[in-house]
Amino acid sequence: MGPTIKLSSGYEMPQVGFGLWKVDSATAADTVYNAIKTGYRLFDGACDYGNEKQCGEGISRAIAEGLVTRSELFITSKLWPVFSDSDKVEPACRRSLSDWGLEYFDLYLIHFPGALKYVDPAVRYPPGWFHDGQSAIVRSQTPLHVTWGAMEGLVGKGLARSIGVSNFQAQLVYDLLRYATVPPAALQIEHHPYLVQKELLALAKAEGIAVTAYSSFGPASFLEFKFKHAEAMVPLMQDELIVGIAAKHGKKPSQVLLRWATQRGLAVIPKTSRVGVMAENLDVTGFDLEQDEIDQITAKDAGIRFNQPSNYFSTDKMWIFG
Amino acid sequence: MGPTIKLSSGYEMPQVGFGLWKVDSATAADTVYNAIKTGYRLFDGACDYGNEKQCGEGISRAIAEGLVTRSELFITSKLWPVFSDSDKVEPACRRSLSDWGLEYFDLYLIHFPGALKYVDPAVRYPPGWFHDGQSAIVRSQTPLHVTWGAMEGLVGKGLARSIGVSNFQAQLVYDLLRYATVPPAALQIEHHPYLVQKELLALAKAEGIAVTAYSSFGPASFLEFKFKHAEAMVPLMQDELIVGIAAKHGKKPSQVLLRWATQRGLAVIPKTSRVGVMAENLDVTGFDLEQDEIDQITAKDAGIRFNQPSNYFSTDKMWIFG
Repeated sequence: MGPTIKLSSGYEMPQVGFGLWKVDSATAADTVYNAIKTGYRLFDGACDYGNEKQCGEGISRAIAEGLVTRSELFITSKLWPVFSDSDKVEPACRRSLSDWGLEYFDLYLIHFPGALKYVDPAVRYPPGWFHDGQSAIVRSQTPLHVTWGAMEGLVGKGLARSIGVSNFQAQLVYDLLRYATVPPAALQIEHHPYLVQKELLALAKAEGIAVTAYSSFGPASFLEFKFKHAEAMVPLMQDELIVGIAAKHGKKPSQVLLRWATQRGLAVIPKTSRVGVMAENLDVTGFDLEQDEIDQITAKDAGIRFNQPSNYFSTDKMWIFG
Repeated sequence: MGPTIKLSSGYEMPQVGFGLWKVDSATAADTVYNAIKTGYRLFDGACDYGNEKQCGEGISRAIAEGLVTRSELFITSKLWPVFSDSDKVEPACRRSLSDWGLEYFDLYLIHFPGALKYVDPAVRYPPGWFHDGQSAIVRSQTPLHVTWGAMEGLVGKGLARSIGVSNFQAQLVYDLLRYATVPPAALQIEHHPYLVQKELLALAKAEGIAVTAYSSFGPASFLEFKFKHAEAMVPLMQDELIVGIAAKHGKKPSQVLLRWATQRGLAVIPKTSRVGVMAENLDVTGFDLEQDEIDQITAKDAGIRFNQPSNYFSTDKMWIFG
């Protein structure tokens, strides 16, 4: 097992994990199984990814074959906004646990700020953004402090060892810190050389919140959504600076991007279906970039955030997630 | 009186007002008096500006001379973060009212998100950012929902007709909207062609929150702080596009910048000590930019925010205000 990050909850989180966003449910079981074989121990899932059952099958197979034990794994899932009401948090967590075939999550995150009106899983699961499945965003009036209280309840019941948040910006994290009795152990955010998030990382560091970077390869993660601003950018894997640093270290550009993040102290959760690339992406703590190289990559910051709900949907209601 | 914006509280707020930030207390009384004479009816003050007593003197003189009545004026003040604890909000508001010589504020705003440890006004007033007056940022654990509850109390007691927030970003506004029993009537934010705030304005519009733009002239407002990134930019008053549009309409570039904001539906609060410029800045709703001109100015957006506490101070604690 590679390096870990000590969470404020006392548990250790692997610094390099495997992200399950956009992993097709048809291949998810094999992908997870192969990733475990390759050496991955952290899997970052979510109700919304629609593949928790299949990911759980991959884990069951690996455990049954003796490749790994449950306690060696670190499994993350996330609460979807329609389950933000205080009496919906625990059932949502239990549904995800049941899909995974697990008794507890190592980390359970609020997926996005902003509560949405409850959707009965019997009606549609995963529920997605729209109350009617197509176009109607309907909010819930439940404020974050109420949802967070229910998240804390999951820790008390042993359903989640650590809890945290995802896609939260500084002001909301800071407010949360003022009322949390169980402080958020982790914050998961979009992070790549075009979105360096300097102040948010400073906040997290000072408050003892572990940060996990997603979309470490930047625009490449979003090309499949036909985002014009992602297509218009030089892919980071072909960026002159990144390619040059990679060549110097005898590594792939992807490894440089991940090492840049891990050397900044972040956890990373790359994803791939190719077994060879799985091994490369895992090998991103065994070499060191020079401080000057890290600084040059950091200087590419352009404040460009791709993963905003408003980028996916044209409805004028999507800004509610900030 | 010029155009007004109807607030969710039912009151009308003038769309063009006078901002009191950085107005020297030595000249504040004359400045306010002259502004009233020029036709201004909205004055945007704050405890932190350190000039509320003098501004109040300017108003008293104008009222005594029969230039204006209290009910024709719209006075805004702001709660400083050290007064965020629930039992400190009302005394802070009453202190500001007393300094102004007023019985009520038309609008009282939370100046910044993020609560700071109480500073007794007998020790230092205005208290500023630092608990020891120099370098120690000490936070309060009071969450926003508690402070907001106390702000709502001001409305109940008639000390503030409308309440709102300043320097809040979308996620925190959205959370506030979920628990507020008196919703924020106004949001005051930095807004200029380099910081267009599209999504935040969409949120405010959809939620019926009036938006007041400050620093409408962009970097020019910050040159006196020696901000390198402000000095490095082309001043908006000399920007080719702005100058060209101004010439076409026979107006000053400053007027174009203010009209761009008012045509986007925002209130503006420019400041000047020169009486001639006061009149110009007030005359920013009587001519219309073409939609194409508005769009060209809006396209200058660069996401550059100057008024961040971390820009003023080198302490690594200033990110707490997000």
